[in-house]
Amino acid sequence: MSKVITPMEQDYSQWYNDLVLRSGLADYSAVRGCMVIKPYGYRLWENMRDVLDKMFKDTGHVNAYFPLFVPKSLFEAEEKNAEGFAKECAVVTHYRLKNDPANPGKLMVDPEARLEEELVVRPTSEAIIWNTYKGWIQSYRDLPILVNQWANVVRWEMRTRLFLRTAEFLWQEGHTAHATEQEAREEAAKMLEVYADFVENYMALPVVKGVKSESERFAGAVDTLCIEALMQDGKALQAGTSHFLGQNFAKAFDVKFSDSNNKLEYVWATSWGVSTRLIGALVMAHSDNQGLVLPPKIAPLQVVIVPIYKGDEQLAAITDTLKPIISQLKDLGISVKYDDSEHARPGWKFAEYELQGVPVRMAIGARDLANGVAEIARRDTKEKMTVNLDGIAFYIKTLLDEIQLHLFEKAKNFRAEHTTEANSWDEFVSILDGKGGFVSAHWDGTAETEEKIKDLAKATIRCIPLDAKEEAGTCILTGKPSNKRVLFARAY
Amino acid sequence: MSKVITPMEQDYSQWYNDLVLRSGLADYSAVRGCMVIKPYGYRLWENMRDVLDKMFKDTGHVNAYFPLFVPKSLFEAEEKNAEGFAKECAVVTHYRLKNDPANPGKLMVDPEARLEEELVVRPTSEAIIWNTYKGWIQSYRDLPILVNQWANVVRWEMRTRLFLRTAEFLWQEGHTAHATEQEAREEAAKMLEVYADFVENYMALPVVKGVKSESERFAGAVDTLCIEALMQDGKALQAGTSHFLGQNFAKAFDVKFSDSNNKLEYVWATSWGVSTRLIGALVMAHSDNQGLVLPPKIAPLQVVIVPIYKGDEQLAAITDTLKPIISQLKDLGISVKYDDSEHARPGWKFAEYELQGVPVRMAIGARDLANGVAEIARRDTKEKMTVNLDGIAFYIKTLLDEIQLHLFEKAKNFRAEHTTEANSWDEFVSILDGKGGFVSAHWDGTAETEEKIKDLAKATIRCIPLDAKEEAGTCILTGKPSNKRVLFARAY
Ligand SMILES: [Zn+2]
Ligand SMILES: [Zn+2]
Repeated sequence: MSKVITPMEQDYSQWYNDLVLRSGLADYSAVRGCMVIKPYGYRLWENMRDVLDKMFKDTGHVNAYFPLFVPKSLFEAEEKNAEGFAKECAVVTHYRLKNDPANPGKLMVDPEARLEEELVVRPTSEAIIWNTYKGWIQSYRDLPILVNQWANVVRWEMRTRLFLRTAEFLWQEGHTAHATEQEAREEAAKMLEVYADFVENYMALPVVKGVKSESERFAGAVDTLCIEALMQDGKALQAGTSHFLGQNFAKAFDVKFSDSNNKLEYVWATSWGVSTRLIGALVMAHSDNQGLVLPPKIAPLQVVIVPIYKGDEQLAAITDTLKPIISQLKDLGISVKYDDSEHARPGWKFAEYELQGVPVRMAIGARDLANGVAEIARRDTKEKMTVNLDGIAFYIKTLLDEIQLHLFEKAKNFRAEHTTEANSWDEFVSILDGKGGFVSAHWDGTAETEEKIKDLAKATIRCIPLDAKEEAGTCILTGKPSNKRVLFARAY
Repeated sequence: MSKVITPMEQDYSQWYNDLVLRSGLADYSAVRGCMVIKPYGYRLWENMRDVLDKMFKDTGHVNAYFPLFVPKSLFEAEEKNAEGFAKECAVVTHYRLKNDPANPGKLMVDPEARLEEELVVRPTSEAIIWNTYKGWIQSYRDLPILVNQWANVVRWEMRTRLFLRTAEFLWQEGHTAHATEQEAREEAAKMLEVYADFVENYMALPVVKGVKSESERFAGAVDTLCIEALMQDGKALQAGTSHFLGQNFAKAFDVKFSDSNNKLEYVWATSWGVSTRLIGALVMAHSDNQGLVLPPKIAPLQVVIVPIYKGDEQLAAITDTLKPIISQLKDLGISVKYDDSEHARPGWKFAEYELQGVPVRMAIGARDLANGVAEIARRDTKEKMTVNLDGIAFYIKTLLDEIQLHLFEKAKNFRAEHTTEANSWDEFVSILDGKGGFVSAHWDGTAETEEKIKDLAKATIRCIPLDAKEEAGTCILTGKPSNKRVLFARAY
């Protein structure tokens, strides 16, 4: 496969696909809409998962695992949820294959092994989990339940994109049960903060925290909180959601608890999730035409060292000098690879590690060695520095922190430049057709207007920001009164 | 739910179910044959997974993720593999539900959303993975591929048991590709050693390493290596398998590579896996009528401390004394819980942590405090010791090591007492009907005899041990000549 990447200015969408495939993050598969997450991409996901998992545990959650399949009768119990996902459900109808008498060596579905009740492959697990919670909850002493699950889910999508929208994806889904509305609302808000913390401080991607409009709400939720990020093409991407589910699922599955006064009440619920979609966001937010640009805190490999040498003697001298530096880097908790393979030239290696987004590259030749220096290149700005070998491990540690920060600052500046207030319809459309990004505008609060704006301008309400201030204004489309601005964008 | 556990002497199978349910490892679900892995059980699985994952990475493997679904045409490509799993396949035939006009509020499978090609929910992933490897392998430089996947798989089982046999289970499956037969055979053998190391040194469960007879081989394998463990009821359990797949999958999916002489050759393959079934083995190997007995190295919680007090003042004094000890335990890498909750009496707590198999319990009352001692109870032997508080953290650390070792020694002794040579059919049957366990006996090497023995004695050949020595003998059933003993047992 050619390693050439289509420049993003020429075709952003093709640039993204080229990048994901050629950097080894993922591959297409033989299954429609499903992808293969390749080792480099999976390593990135593991790093993200490990950080999130620790954050969940630090906030009192535990992991569990619930069945992949949801019997149809359970799936349809919460009607809005069922309605919202029915069109995307993969359905298991049979439990056996048999030899196909018409095609020797081939198999066919055994018509006699039809399930009495069809099984939906989980698109999300509220139904199967709340059906289980019914058996776990009797009294207020059984609450709260703070459970998370790492799992695969399936949503049959017609148009798919690697990581961004695939039929099967990996995610985590938290499902909590509470005795009071307030506690459940606080949980939903807390987990939104956890997501924002993760995306900003590990993925180096600033987010807007907000509430979804009714039309964009999760099917079955009372309120959906979300974090929204901005990609380099000016389109928005929903990076995580946290739902306050009220008592909807408790009512659908008859989950009641006796409170401290022995009164029976329905249980309050939340659910919250992020998925491998975040990898798509990461790629689109920071990368360039040479390849991935990964934030040091989650990069599978933080530092690569490439020796530049002629003959075994020069290599041995360089290797000897580097050994203690490599140990020191490892002791500092930095992942490092020493690539002294003979099969590729330094220039080829440089390009390869640039493609993979390794944050820091160190190159060292015979003359550098004589001078006691090495060349350090940072992936994000492509700056090169000559650095003394003495103390270079600490230099690199500081540099990794600086890169992490710099990526976040750069993305923040980009977002600031691409967040614009619009006060008229013409202004609104010209911003969207021009520089893109978030457009902050007044909206009359109705689903009808929201739908019309979507049709006319291909932009959706990303969220009503949590920090939106009261401001009298008029809806950009209808001119009706509005008391706060909401955030619009074209979105993934 | 009553916490009473049926004694194992009375009904071993009921004892096992009671234990799994009441200790909070797992729960039944609304989906036939599928279970819910509860937080305590999942934490145990996480600990096991983390150790194994490190072992895989230390032996050069990387993780990746392949689709849940296998198109039928790929599934049937390797005929033996397909034949072996066809009867257990959950099959997705449709991708949409719709409102059921006959039942308002209910959904039905949309007959217009029938898939052109049915999708098998993976019972194992050789087919989808080798179809993918075809695109990854051109030359010997692309080899070896050393990939592992942590995933859920589905095998439709008619009779299910929590952890031991469920329709859906969690596992890891390694899938490697090699340039030579020898390298692939070495890989399969190496991973068997990794499994044996894990099961013996972390799960404290001794295993016999061996090769499966042809009838017991994995469908599609040339050779299946396995580790076999013995449960307390004298039945064997297959704890892990590692398959040398030859070129079967390379041929089925046309995966060739050009060797260093530019000659095209089929690629050699292995696959290997262990699953949540190991949790069932763990429970059955060590536990007793009071509850779980967990090896310290993988126990979710290693030490519980229960203060015994009257009034807040006593509690405060105990807590003050314990604080530095708890920190010290944590510094030693020991997981510890201080249970000072007022809602339960010490005796109730003792029983609860015994049920959960926490390896070490420390109890401390006002008089103990005055004497500068605490009571230490070990879960495995139920011995209680009075121990000086001075240096107690180190005492506990050593005790945890001792418990780990002791569990292994005990299981090894049990196995030694339950491994018997049989030299006649009568002897063979009377051992199986009596004390059970492994029976080492001669067999004529034919599948017919193996099948007859299975029918007559309900015992299967667990393996031909790797360390079986040459020994002239005669088959216990047919009297035909045999040159080594094989290991029989009734098994899970
Ligand atoms: Zn900077
Ligand atoms: Zn001992």
